[in-house]
Amino acid sequence: VARQHQAALEQRLAHFHPADIAFVLESLPPDARAMAWSLVKPERRGAVLLEASDAVRRSIALGMSPDEIAAVVRTLDSDDIADLVSSLPEDLRHAVVERLDRTDQDEVRSVLSFPPGTVGAIMDMDFIAVREDTTLEAVQRLLRRRKTLPAHTNQLFVVDRSNTLKGLLPLSRLLLEEPETSVGEVMIRQPVYFYTDDEVRDAVDAFEKYDLISAPVVNLHQQVVGRITVDAVVDEINARAQSESLRQVGLSEEDEDLFAPIARSARRRWPWLVLNLLTAFFASRVIGAFEDIIAELVALATLMPIVASIGGNTGNQSVALVIRGLALNQLGPSQLRQILLRELQINAINGALWGAVLGLVTLAIYHHLPLAAVIAAALLLNMLVAALVGVLTPVALHRFGRDPAMGSSIILTATTDSMGFFIFLGLAAAFLV
Amino acid sequence: VARQHQAALEQRLAHFHPADIAFVLESLPPDARAMAWSLVKPERRGAVLLEASDAVRRSIALGMSPDEIAAVVRTLDSDDIADLVSSLPEDLRHAVVERLDRTDQDEVRSVLSFPPGTVGAIMDMDFIAVREDTTLEAVQRLLRRRKTLPAHTNQLFVVDRSNTLKGLLPLSRLLLEEPETSVGEVMIRQPVYFYTDDEVRDAVDAFEKYDLISAPVVNLHQQVVGRITVDAVVDEINARAQSESLRQVGLSEEDEDLFAPIARSARRRWPWLVLNLLTAFFASRVIGAFEDIIAELVALATLMPIVASIGGNTGNQSVALVIRGLALNQLGPSQLRQILLRELQINAINGALWGAVLGLVTLAIYHHLPLAAVIAAALLLNMLVAALVGVLTPVALHRFGRDPAMGSSIILTATTDSMGFFIFLGLAAAFLV
Repeated sequence: VARQHQAALEQRLAHFHPADIAFVLESLPPDARAMAWSLVKPERRGAVLLEASDAVRRSIALGMSPDEIAAVVRTLDSDDIADLVSSLPEDLRHAVVERLDRTDQDEVRSVLSFPPGTVGAIMDMDFIAVREDTTLEAVQRLLRRRKTLPAHTNQLFVVDRSNTLKGLLPLSRLLLEEPETSVGEVMIRQPVYFYTDDEVRDAVDAFEKYDLISAPVVNLHQQVVGRITVDAVVDEINARAQSESLRQVGLSEEDEDLFAPIARSARRRWPWLVLNLLTAFFASRVIGAFEDIIAELVALATLMPIVASIGGNTGNQSVALVIRGLALNQLGPSQLRQILLRELQINAINGALWGAVLGLVTLAIYHHLPLAAVIAAALLLNMLVAALVGVLTPVALHRFGRDPAMGSSIILTATTDSMGFFIFLGLAAAFLV
Repeated sequence: VARQHQAALEQRLAHFHPADIAFVLESLPPDARAMAWSLVKPERRGAVLLEASDAVRRSIALGMSPDEIAAVVRTLDSDDIADLVSSLPEDLRHAVVERLDRTDQDEVRSVLSFPPGTVGAIMDMDFIAVREDTTLEAVQRLLRRRKTLPAHTNQLFVVDRSNTLKGLLPLSRLLLEEPETSVGEVMIRQPVYFYTDDEVRDAVDAFEKYDLISAPVVNLHQQVVGRITVDAVVDEINARAQSESLRQVGLSEEDEDLFAPIARSARRRWPWLVLNLLTAFFASRVIGAFEDIIAELVALATLMPIVASIGGNTGNQSVALVIRGLALNQLGPSQLRQILLRELQINAINGALWGAVLGLVTLAIYHHLPLAAVIAAALLLNMLVAALVGVLTPVALHRFGRDPAMGSSIILTATTDSMGFFIFLGLAAAFLV
């Protein structure tokens, strides 16, 4: 029965799109995953791996020899091979690359040599270049001889004898203009292009802004060396968005693999947990300094978490606004001053108002006017701290080249907790005893 | 001098891409924004508005009469007009649509009639359809007569006499195959297509998965009524990612407008603030129930925020993993059981380990073994609560058709705070007095 089942699955997989097979592999536990993988037709394995998540790629590749991996990736373009092998451990990566054909080896090594996060590292090398003085008819003949176009080809690159970028010839112009016209007459002369060491983030912004499908990539001498296409950009946008929400809570893509050993997954969370323990412990020591006064007025212990918690929540609003502004490149010095001023004003208004409300509730419960006044003032002050720290933390992290999405929230919460306790208990110590 | 400055700005703007002008408008305060807007050439205003954010669109449109708005949008495609007017208040929207040409009116009304979030609402109606029995040569002649192709045309739609979708003819095949071939011989017969009432979210997934540039949209009779293109999909992915990080902290796109009146912005934050105050107040009442025992042992007040804080942080990790899994459609019932089990196991291991460490530190500070045991146990238990609530909350919200990104975190934190205090102080009441 198991064999029958396997045969059925094998037939089924043969009709699936590689992306769908990758999806199936991702949802299977390791044993079943290895079994299903063995049923994928060898010539499709490269395409399937390419669509799989990093964690699954690695889990599959680590079960294969360098020879087997090389055989699997050989069917792919060199940039895709580079993408695949870059998720392998370094020694395995070298072993695989050594087993490729000479041209593939060179191209893969050249892509791998670009630092991650640059356009060079995600470009593909499969593009068609034509000369300015060719007629459109000749171009079309040339394309017919080629038989296929690289995926997502919406334009040809126009270059001179030394391969320098001169312009772009959209396929639409090739189709619409008269055949005897020359390329130079109808090409786009001021194309959007990228350098290999441009940041992917900037390329993504340009693709969004100018609605691009593909764009040439040039080296420092303006020679065309590759292109980037919108599908790579879409992958990039997604990877960015998805990894951001994980990074905010100290996780990475690897923490998603539901089949990794528990002990290892637990250990992966230690640094974040220890960081949180340390900041919580620090806040706790702030309270510890006021134990005498809490012993005198226990209501302080009851009320203090409110001040800390509201500070954290409002501060995280400022953080989110600033991170978004930074991501969209919208925060120059004057916008920054403005956003800081606005957040301070908003929190001043809301802190005064809702602090007063909280004071009244406190008065109703404890019948203690000075206590009510202290919690109202503390809420207002901590919300001002929250605005200040919430705006400045992501900006500072960004300035120092760190990822604001990752560190801002924990720094903010550590501050609003400690300062919340300090302000509330400090005011109490000053005015209530 | 101001006039000279204006003339310079006007000339500058004339060379900008509409997206860049929109960017400039977004970074200006209202007065300067109105001035800069008046310098944009009338025929480019529609394109600029299209690139601007919702908040800026509205602020500009509200300064114009319906006639002026209609004149501005008239240059655009009907789907873009629909996109623009959909961000206007309802009465203004009607007034503008009434002032358009009859065909535009019909098309805009038809796009506006599709519910937001469906493919119909973001499709564009500008596509080229050809018949199966035409030769490629005839198609190319037809295109030359047309002079232009709609933006992002990478394929023509093949339809029959009643406009039913039969297949797709990629421009590449049109270019590569012999001119005398018929469309039917070289078209793609099993194309990816969407219905007008498909969810945009599903279309976005398909575009990502199959690396599409454009796809036909059909009605219930399989007749082609429009298409969606990758640029709309990219916008959609971005809007989704960006609004998600704002929604997590109770904000929306409108909170980004740096020039909205402060009082209004402050008021917009009230619901979220009140919700946070209520949950914090609830947690505070939990503490209030234990005031007697805190009075006896003040160290409890000092230590309790640690238990609550770690619970919140670890729980938010589970939330992030589950939300991501839901977004990627990867969580069937068995995956869900697995992720729940894993998070419980991971938090059991880490809770036991770091609870013990926290217990030792407590012992070193307070020399009180039962207190150390209580905090160790409380940390472990609250981390188990965090895993349970962190996994189940987003799943439950998702089941009930709510947005898990928006509500999960606040429900989780409310629970881990209250339960953290309750477990810690409850154990203390049971074993320490």
